[in-house]
Amino acid sequence: MPTRTYRICFLGFGNVNRTLLRLLEQKRGELNERYDLAWQLTGVASRRLGWIAAPQGLDAETIADGWKPGSANVRNSIEDWLGDARPDVLFEATSLNVANGQPAVDYLRAGLEHGAHVISANKGPVVHAFRELTALAGQKGKRYLFEAAVMDGAPIFSLFRENLPAVELHAFYGILNSTTNVILTGVEQGLSFRQSLGKAQEIGVAETDPSHDVEGWDAAVKVAALITVLMGEPFPPQRVEREGIGSLTGDAVRQARAGGRPYKLVCRARRSAGRIIASVKPEQVPATDPMAQISGTSSIITFETDIFPALTITETNPGVYTTAYGMLADFIRAVRTQA
Amino acid sequence: MPTRTYRICFLGFGNVNRTLLRLLEQKRGELNERYDLAWQLTGVASRRLGWIAAPQGLDAETIADGWKPGSANVRNSIEDWLGDARPDVLFEATSLNVANGQPAVDYLRAGLEHGAHVISANKGPVVHAFRELTALAGQKGKRYLFEAAVMDGAPIFSLFRENLPAVELHAFYGILNSTTNVILTGVEQGLSFRQSLGKAQEIGVAETDPSHDVEGWDAAVKVAALITVLMGEPFPPQRVEREGIGSLTGDAVRQARAGGRPYKLVCRARRSAGRIIASVKPEQVPATDPMAQISGTSSIITFETDIFPALTITETNPGVYTTAYGMLADFIRAVRTQA
Repeated sequence: MPTRTYRICFLGFGNVNRTLLRLLEQKRGELNERYDLAWQLTGVASRRLGWIAAPQGLDAETIADGWKPGSANVRNSIEDWLGDARPDVLFEATSLNVANGQPAVDYLRAGLEHGAHVISANKGPVVHAFRELTALAGQKGKRYLFEAAVMDGAPIFSLFRENLPAVELHAFYGILNSTTNVILTGVEQGLSFRQSLGKAQEIGVAETDPSHDVEGWDAAVKVAALITVLMGEPFPPQRVEREGIGSLTGDAVRQARAGGRPYKLVCRARRSAGRIIASVKPEQVPATDPMAQISGTSSIITFETDIFPALTITETNPGVYTTAYGMLADFIRAVRTQA
Repeated sequence: MPTRTYRICFLGFGNVNRTLLRLLEQKRGELNERYDLAWQLTGVASRRLGWIAAPQGLDAETIADGWKPGSANVRNSIEDWLGDARPDVLFEATSLNVANGQPAVDYLRAGLEHGAHVISANKGPVVHAFRELTALAGQKGKRYLFEAAVMDGAPIFSLFRENLPAVELHAFYGILNSTTNVILTGVEQGLSFRQSLGKAQEIGVAETDPSHDVEGWDAAVKVAALITVLMGEPFPPQRVEREGIGSLTGDAVRQARAGGRPYKLVCRARRSAGRIIASVKPEQVPATDPMAQISGTSSIITFETDIFPALTITETNPGVYTTAYGMLADFIRAVRTQA
C-alpha cells in the first residue's frame, strides 16, 4: 500500500494538542512503516494565536512556545481557516463548556462539513451533540471519534464499539476524576481541604478554579458521556445525581481511611426497569476494593453486562501523553476504516 | 445492507461449542438487526459423533445430548466433512495439546484451505502455529481469530490489534489460571491441598487430571500465547520459567494469607535488553494489590507499555458463556472486516 499523507490541523493548542504533536513526531517512523501513514501540519488555531493556516506546512519547532505567526497566515474565521488549511483530520482540544458544548460543537460540525475526520478530546460535544455529529460524519463518510474524552487515552469507547459487539451494558461504576483523588489523599495524610487543594494546584492536577472538579461536574459529564454513547441514550450531565467532596470534613475523611473504608468520589450508572439512573458522590469503599487503590491521575471503571458479570479497566498513573495517545489512536482508526 | 447467511461448523462439541450454539440462538435477533448477519449450522464434529455434515442444516434441538446422527450424515475425514458442510466459519474448540498443538493446527489449516474463517478457543495452535495460520488466512482473505484462548472472552488480543495501535508492550503480569485460584482459596480456609483440589473438581473447575493446571502449564501456555501475539516473538511454553503450587505447604499458604500477603500463581513476562523473560510461579502479593482479590474463575492482567504506565483488565466471575462469547465476537469481527 502506498503511504498517504494526511493534512492535519489543531484546534486548541494547549497541553493536549502540543503533546499530541510531539507524539506524532516521535511515532512518525512507526506510523509510516506499520500503517502507511504520513502527516503534515497545515493549521493551528487557539485563542492566543488566532486562526493560523499554512498550506505549505508547519513544523513543531516553528510553533514552539512564544511563536508569533506572520499576518499572512492569519485567517478571520474557521471557514476561511478550513478552506486554506484543508485538513483531512482535525484534532479538537478546546475548553469544555458543560452547559451546551459550544463552541466546540460548531467547530466539529464545520470540520465534518469541510470533509475532515474530527477527533476530539472534548466531553462537551459528546454529551450535547453525539447523535448529530455521528450522523453528520456518517453522511460525509468520515469519523467523529473522541476516545480521549474519558479516562485519557484508555480504550473505552472503542472497546465497546469494536471489541464487544452484541454485548448489553447494564451498569458501570468507577472513579473518573483525578483532582478529587489527589485532594482526598492529601486530606487523609493530614492536610486541610484547602491545603490539599493548593498542593493539587501546584502539581498541575487541579485547575485554578477547582469547583468543576470538586463539585463533581467533571465526573458527572464523564458519566453522561458514557451513558450517551455506551447505553445509547442521550443523557444530560444535569440528570446525574451529583454531590461533591465539599460536604466532607477532614476528620470524616481521615477516620474513614483509618477505619479501612476510605472515601472516594464514586461514579455510578445503572439501567433498571428501562430507566437509567446515575450518580456521582463520595462513598466509602472497602480497603480491599480495587477502587480504594485508585489515587493521583489513575482511574478505574467496571462494566456489568449480559456477558461479563464484571469487566474492569484500570489505568494507572497516566500523563497528558496518554490523552494525546487517545487522539493518535483515533487518527489511525479513522484513516484505516475510511469509507 | 442485505442480511447474509453464513454456514457455520463446530469442531469439538464440548462445553464451549455447545454454549456457543445456545448463545448464537439467543443473540439471533440482535445479530440479524445490528450486524445483518444470519447463520446456519451445517456440520458438527467430535470424538463421540464423528464427522457429521448436514448441508440442509441442523438445529440446536436436534443435536441435544444423546443425539445419534444417521449414517447418511457421517463423513470419513475432515476434508470430506468440509467439502459437504462447506462452512464459511469454522469454530474450533478441541482439546489442548501443549507439545505441538495437534491435531488442532491441522484442522485450522484445513479450514482455511477450504476457505472458511477459523475461530478457535484453543491455545495450542496460537503457541505452535500463530504465524503460519495468520499468513495462510491472509493469503485466503480470511481470518484466524482466537480471542477465547486466553482470559475467556475478555478482549485482550483484539484490544491490542484494534484498540492500541502503535503501542509498544514492554511487560505484562497477572493471574490467568482458575484452578489454582480455587485450590489456594480452599487451602487458606483450612482444607488440605488434596481436599481443596477435590472440591475444585466437584464444582467443575479442575480437570480429572489436574496436573496441567497445578504444575503451571496452563498458565505457561497462556503466557507464551500472549508473548507470541502481543510481543511479536514466537515463544514456546517450555521457555516460560515454571513452578506450580505443589511446592507450597498448607501452613505456608495460610500463614501468608494471615500475614496479609497471600500466595497467588502469578504470571510475568518482560522484554529487557532485547530479550523476553517469562515466569509462572507462586508469589506473595500485598492484600491491597488487586491481584490479591482475584479468586475463583476471575482473572487479571496488567500491561506496561510506552504509552500506558499500567493498563489493567480484570474479568470477574466469568462462566463458560464468556468463553463462548469470545468466539461469537470473533465471528462478528471476521465477517465485518472480510476481504
